[in-house]
Amino acid sequence: MIRPLGDRVLVEAAAKEEKTASGIVLPDTAKEKPQEGTIVAVGSGSLNKDGDRIALEVKEGDRVLFSKYAGTEIKYEGKEYLIMKESDIHAIVG
Amino acid sequence: MIRPLGDRVLVEAAAKEEKTASGIVLPDTAKEKPQEGTIVAVGSGSLNKDGDRIALEVKEGDRVLFSKYAGTEIKYEGKEYLIMKESDIHAIVG
Amino acid sequence: MIRPLGDRVLVEAAAKEEKTASGIVLPDTAKEKPQEGTIVAVGSGSLNKDGDRIALEVKEGDRVLFSKYAGTEIKYEGKEYLIMKESDIHAIVG
Amino acid sequence: MIRPLGDRVLVEAAAKEEKTASGIVLPDTAKEKPQEGTIVAVGSGSLNKDGDRIALEVKEGDRVLFSKYAGTEIKYEGKEYLIMKESDIHAIVG
Amino acid sequence: MIRPLGDRVLVEAAAKEEKTASGIVLPDTAKEKPQEGTIVAVGSGSLNKDGDRIALEVKEGDRVLFSKYAGTEIKYEGKEYLIMKESDIHAIVG
Amino acid sequence: MIRPLGDRVLVEAAAKEEKTASGIVLPDTAKEKPQEGTIVAVGSGSLNKDGDRIALEVKEGDRVLFSKYAGTEIKYEGKEYLIMKESDIHAIVG
Amino acid sequence: MIRPLGDRVLVEAAAKEEKTASGIVLPDTAKEKPQEGTIVAVGSGSLNKDGDRIALEVKEGDRVLFSKYAGTEIKYEGKEYLIMKESDIHAIVG
Repeated sequence: MIRPLGDRVLVEAAAKEEKTASGIVLPDTAKEKPQEGTIVAVGSGSLNKDGDRIALEVKEGDRVLFSKYAGTEIKYEGKEYLIMKESDIHAIVG
Repeated sequence: MIRPLGDRVLVEAAAKEEKTASGIVLPDTAKEKPQEGTIVAVGSGSLNKDGDRIALEVKEGDRVLFSKYAGTEIKYEGKEYLIMKESDIHAIVG
Repeated sequence: MIRPLGDRVLVEAAAKEEKTASGIVLPDTAKEKPQEGTIVAVGSGSLNKDGDRIALEVKEGDRVLFSKYAGTEIKYEGKEYLIMKESDIHAIVG
Repeated sequence: MIRPLGDRVLVEAAAKEEKTASGIVLPDTAKEKPQEGTIVAVGSGSLNKDGDRIALEVKEGDRVLFSKYAGTEIKYEGKEYLIMKESDIHAIVG
Repeated sequence: MIRPLGDRVLVEAAAKEEKTASGIVLPDTAKEKPQEGTIVAVGSGSLNKDGDRIALEVKEGDRVLFSKYAGTEIKYEGKEYLIMKESDIHAIVG
Repeated sequence: MIRPLGDRVLVEAAAKEEKTASGIVLPDTAKEKPQEGTIVAVGSGSLNKDGDRIALEVKEGDRVLFSKYAGTEIKYEGKEYLIMKESDIHAIVG
Repeated sequence: MIRPLGDRVLVEAAAKEEKTASGIVLPDTAKEKPQEGTIVAVGSGSLNKDGDRIALEVKEGDRVLFSKYAGTEIKYEGKEYLIMKESDIHAIVG
């Protein structure tokens, strides 16, 4: 098990085929295009001014769009994941 | 459905023709010129110091002016959208 | 109607002739010189730490001095305006 | 009348002759040297965390030392002034 | 004994062999790859706005992934350690 | 009289001879070396989050060590002074 | 006596011989290596949001590891010291 810390999340990036299935097709222009994936695990949240944890907006199983330059790659039990901050996630889809 | 996170909004940029219809014509000078569009979906807001969400000022259906360099492009069910932060929106028009 | 968001204001820049009429003449030196104009609309204010809006100090009709590099130009119903942050405004005159 | 906004002040810079009269002579070294002037008008103050205005420390008539690169020049009814932030003022003299 | 200050932790980096044992294999791409290790000691936490200490999320014995450029190396009683900030740790594993 | 604003202090730098007398001798290495001087006047303090003034830690007459690049030079009634922020002062000596 | 201000501390750096005695040997790699020393005096602490002082975590007599580029050198009554911020100290040892 991988438990992300703070406001980090563990994401499994979608394969190219899956993207079409979910209905998201990324247009071919100059602007940065987000990548799609699924939330596998979420951290306990960042701290508010009193030192309490603020629950993340995304949860396990959410299909998300995130910045394609976001995160750190890891391979765990044969699968590849990305660990990134929730702020790198643009939207929940589907 | 695409649900933007935090203080992000989903915008459908106006086509060139629509701009004239709404009465906004952008002058031809050196300063940055904003682009027009319509809010399609809004996030749950950013967090205040206690960790509560602050509702966004814009709402679904608002006609807005935004920085033309703002946002991330996505195509969803055949239509193109922009995901941007509310702070990239200058004004509501009409 | 154009409604600026947050702590933004909509300003109609003064024509060259009007400047003399109001008594402001900008000296010819190396320092940045402000531009004069009139507030046409104001936003609902920025957020304090609790997420409440703080009313702007300027109001519709105020004659103001602002940084000449400030703002974004728009043309609406045949007239040119600038959208800028209240913090780009130096002073109220007259 | 010119009313500065927020934590800004309106200053009339002292002429070269006046400096000697007030007893301040600026030494000739490499460090930045402040300029002397008189406060003509003060803003309503910056905002604290609750959104209330904090009164400025300087008041109309104060003789002050300020950074010589500070502020924006304006000419109003034939006289030249500087609009600057209170934080650009080092000290009250006399 | 080494007691880290504030939100710092003392980490013993895993040897290359141990990495395979824990099931984490780092893929060979361009993105930064985290390093694995074990928490040996934790600081008393950073300060919240009232000046109270906020307990760290990791504890002694946790197996963690951290940025491979993080921390300061020290050798103590013949063993090598890293002192780093908790924010350099991405996740707890295992 | 010169009254520093906010968290600024007025310092009279010690002459070279005085330094030896107070027992401080600055070693000849690559690191920045502080300068010694005496506090002549202090400001009313910086503002806390409520807008109240926080009294400075140094007071008139304190012998202090400060960064030799700190402050702004002024000459007043024939004497040279430095105006600097309290945060530029490292320690009180003697 | 030297009394550090705010969150600063006065440190006497350990001589090369003492380092071996305390059991810390710094490995020979590319990463920055900390230096060892003893706290001689501590400041009254930094300010929390209400303007109260937060006591430092280190105290007089603590054996500490600190960044070797940290601090300002002074010589007082024939001995050399470093004045640095508490945040430059990594850990307490021994």
